[in-house]
Order: sequence, then structure tokens, then C-alpha cells
Amino acid sequence: MKITKAVVTVAGRGQRALPLQTLIDRDGAEKSVLGILIEEVQRAGVEEIGLVVRSGDEGALTAVAGNHAAHLHFIPQPEPLGYGHALLCARDFVADMPFLHLVGDHIYVSRGDEGCARQLVQIAAQEECTVSAVQATREHLLPYFGVVGGRPLPNRAHLYRVDTVMEKPTPTEAEQQLIVPGLRAGHYLCFFGMHVLTPGVMEILGRLLAAAQTPNRVTLSQALHELAQGEQVLALAKQDWRYDLGARYGLMTAQMALALHGRDRDQVLTQLLELLAGQQSGNS
Amino acid sequence: MKITKAVVTVAGRGQRALPLQTLIDRDGAEKSVLGILIEEVQRAGVEEIGLVVRSGDEGALTAVAGNHAAHLHFIPQPEPLGYGHALLCARDFVADMPFLHLVGDHIYVSRGDEGCARQLVQIAAQEECTVSAVQATREHLLPYFGVVGGRPLPNRAHLYRVDTVMEKPTPTEAEQQLIVPGLRAGHYLCFFGMHVLTPGVMEILGRLLAAAQTPNRVTLSQALHELAQGEQVLALAKQDWRYDLGARYGLMTAQMALALHGRDRDQVLTQLLELLAGQQSGNS
Repeated sequence: MKITKAVVTVAGRGQRALPLQTLIDRDGAEKSVLGILIEEVQRAGVEEIGLVVRSGDEGALTAVAGNHAAHLHFIPQPEPLGYGHALLCARDFVADMPFLHLVGDHIYVSRGDEGCARQLVQIAAQEECTVSAVQATREHLLPYFGVVGGRPLPNRAHLYRVDTVMEKPTPTEAEQQLIVPGLRAGHYLCFFGMHVLTPGVMEILGRLLAAAQTPNRVTLSQALHELAQGEQVLALAKQDWRYDLGARYGLMTAQMALALHGRDRDQVLTQLLELLAGQQSGNS
Repeated sequence: MKITKAVVTVAGRGQRALPLQTLIDRDGAEKSVLGILIEEVQRAGVEEIGLVVRSGDEGALTAVAGNHAAHLHFIPQPEPLGYGHALLCARDFVADMPFLHLVGDHIYVSRGDEGCARQLVQIAAQEECTVSAVQATREHLLPYFGVVGGRPLPNRAHLYRVDTVMEKPTPTEAEQQLIVPGLRAGHYLCFFGMHVLTPGVMEILGRLLAAAQTPNRVTLSQALHELAQGEQVLALAKQDWRYDLGARYGLMTAQMALALHGRDRDQVLTQLLELLAGQQSGNS
């Protein structure tokens, strides 16, 4: 199974301005958030990127994509009908092929140099099935994530066979249906914001949305839960970090994380200590 | 003397995207950099704002100005001919009246709640002359600033009569011409990025630019130096902080400073310590 396309969703309410923001990447270069995401996709060996956008945002996104703009296919979401619907808008673009999916309001920081998406794409290609990146996450953070239940694959580190997926479960729901053997107590496998999805997901999303009274509530979690009843769905537990840019101080936290894992670590730590000590430049 | 207009320059090369960036202000509200600057001006009692922009940037700036857009007058700078020229573009807008001037790539953080521009405007109104906000700054930072020389006004805390202004002086030039009695050794009075300017400045800028072979090199410092030879020019030493957003990690540093001086201080300090300890949410 070869993955040649990626779908990045940037049409969400309150999320549309995030790809336009400027950050300094780990390599010390100034880039837009969109540019950083495009490079993440490219490091995974995936060249064609479908960007699901609100109509009218294409110009601004092209401007910040710079040299990468040629790799982008804009897919307008005509109405703000939620995340599941945004993903389904890319159905013609992916055309019955498996694809990498990233959410456009996260930044991913890997422990190594390879990038976070690369390992995910490799495993999906090997296993020929849907694979969701997940992370062992403390119970109090359940309200922010899609969460998977399942069991470890024998003799395969960090890989789980998924049998249940729930969006933002309550602690009780999680305890009853999402406990995964081998995790630390009070920890669950929450989405990392990165998946390789097989075309079956699009078919299910289409069905769920056609039947939905409130399309905004149709989530990828729902579709993946249904998919896992019919075909193999895996979860890959990541040791990397992801930062939700839409969270309060999300941009600052992501910038700090990039800097602390990158070339400018010493400079930024020094600046930070000076700031905390009230010794800002020009005032000491 | 009443100050009713402000001129904010946001047309500079590499500076145009900065007013569009999003920060969380000290009050905990998410705002564009432009929005924060507009509120700084309004806290000083100044309502009419002339924004010197590159032609074509008006739409994006209007969008991020939100409710404040009605107070903005766009003043296009037709060609990128530098800072002095940008300021001169606002000549018709200020129409022979004194005006507040802020640079669009700085964020100002005051020690109190009043805002940094307010005290400056009050003193200029009282003294009926040009007043530049300055800050005692260590010698190694001279390459980044306009610098004033002069002497303290008798019995007036933090106020100086300016006799010399130089743009980015060398340490030798500074030692010979810019030493100000009463400052700590190795410290100079560097611009804070905020001035109240009398119309005489525009007249001098017009003359300097008409005579200049390279208009890009004409600076406000030059014009203020000439002005100070003919009329009273004061400098007000600020105890506040200014952050240059165009510097490396400038946005992150400014966001951190706003947070550490604001409502969310505890939350942000906690987040920062977790990040430094490698205990990011979802990975502990």
C-alpha cells in the first residue's frame, strides 16, 4: 500500500487564521504554520497535499505557503458543517486511495529528526490498513480528544489493534470501554491529530453525514469506530509531542517547544531567564 | 496643546505581517498586534489613527482591527522608501497638528494599568513640545536604536532636554556626544519607539527627503536632531518595557511578557515549567 496524498483540514471555526501565523522552526528558519505542516508531510515522502479551506482563504494560504504552494490543491468547504464534513470534502481528491491526514491547527515535534508522520506512513504501508497516531494521555485531558480502546499487538512495540473509538468520552465511559492493557493507570490512548486513513473512512463519513440531523456533530472518531468493526484499524503510540495551536497560549507554547528542541535552544533559554528575572534588554 | 491624532507605521519591509499576528493581551483577551496598538493609542485619549501601510495591505489590516477599524485612516506608502518617508506620507493626515507616533512592530508593556503612551501624551500637552519616550539602555544595544544626548531638566524626574540625536551610533560616537549626566555608566537614552511630534518634524523630513540621494537612509533621528537645534525637544525616560516583534523570537518574547504582566501569569508560569521539565500535557 503506497500513500501519495495528504489531506490537511484548516477550515474550522477559530482555526482558519492559525496556518497563517509565523513561527521559527527547529532549524532556526522563520516559517508559516502551514509551511511547517507541509514540510512535515513532505518528510513522510508524501508530495500531493489537499488543503480543506473555507472559500476565500486560498489567497492568504498561497501567500504563506511560499515555494510550497505548487504542491497544494485547495478543496473548499462551502459551509462550516464541522470536521467530519470537512474531511469528506476531500473525497474526490483522495479518489479511493489511502491518505495521510493532519489537522491544520497542530504542530508536531518529533524526538528525532525524521518527523512524526514518516513512521506512521511507513507502518500503514506495511500493515495495509488505517493507522491512527495516539498518545498515552492522563484522564483529565479526555475532554479534548478522540480516544481509542483496544489491545496491544503481540510482539509489536507501540502498536495496538483498535476495537472502540469515542470522541471526548466521560471518565466513566473511558473506564468502561477504553481501558487498554499495559498502559499506566489513569491513562488512555488519545488521538495525536495524525492518521493514515483508508478510503473506507470516506464511505462511512458519507453515510453518517447523509443520515445526520446535525452534521456538525459527525466526527472522525465515529467513522473510525464503525470502520474498526469491519476492517483492521491500528493505533501507533507516539513518543513525540503535539501542540494544539488553538489552545490558549498554544502558539507561544508551540514556539517554545520548537525552540527548546531546536538549534536555538540556548539562546531562547537565556532570553527566557532574562525575562523571568525582569532583566529585559534595555531595562537593566 | 492637544494631541488628537496618532500615526502608526506598518509599511516596513519584513514588518508588514507583524500587525496581523495574534497575541493574548494582559487582560487575557486574544487580539491582533494591531488591535493591541490601537488600544494603547486609545488609552492615551487619542481617537484618530493614521496607519501608514503598503498599498494592498488595507484589507488584511481592516480584518484584524475588528471593531476598531472605524478609527483607522489608511495612508498608503506608494514605494518602500524607508521609515522617514513612511512618516512623511502622513503629513496631510496630521495637518499641522502635533501627533502621537508609534512604530507598528513594537508592543509596549507598562508597569501600571495606564498604558505607556498616556504619560507621554500628557507631558507633551503640558510642555507644548516634541517629546520622545526613551529608555536607559546598555551600550551593546546601541546598534538597534536611535539615541539621544542632553541633560536632565531641573526638578523634573525622568525628563531630559535633548540636544543631540543619532541613529545607531558607534560606542565611540555615543561616548563623545551622547553621555547624559545622571545615568549609570555605560548606559544611554535609546528610543522606546513612541513619540509625540510637532509639525516641525514633518517640515524637516520633507526637506531631508527632497535633498536625499538615498531616501531610505533618512531617519526620524536625523529630523529630531535638526528640530532640537531650533525648538525644545524633550525625552521622557520610561520605566516600562517595549518588545521588538521583528527581532528573532520577538513574538514569543512579547507574548511571554504580556502574560507575565497580566491576568494569566500563574497559568503561563506553570505551563512554562511543565514544558521545561518535559512534562507536556499528554506525555507524562
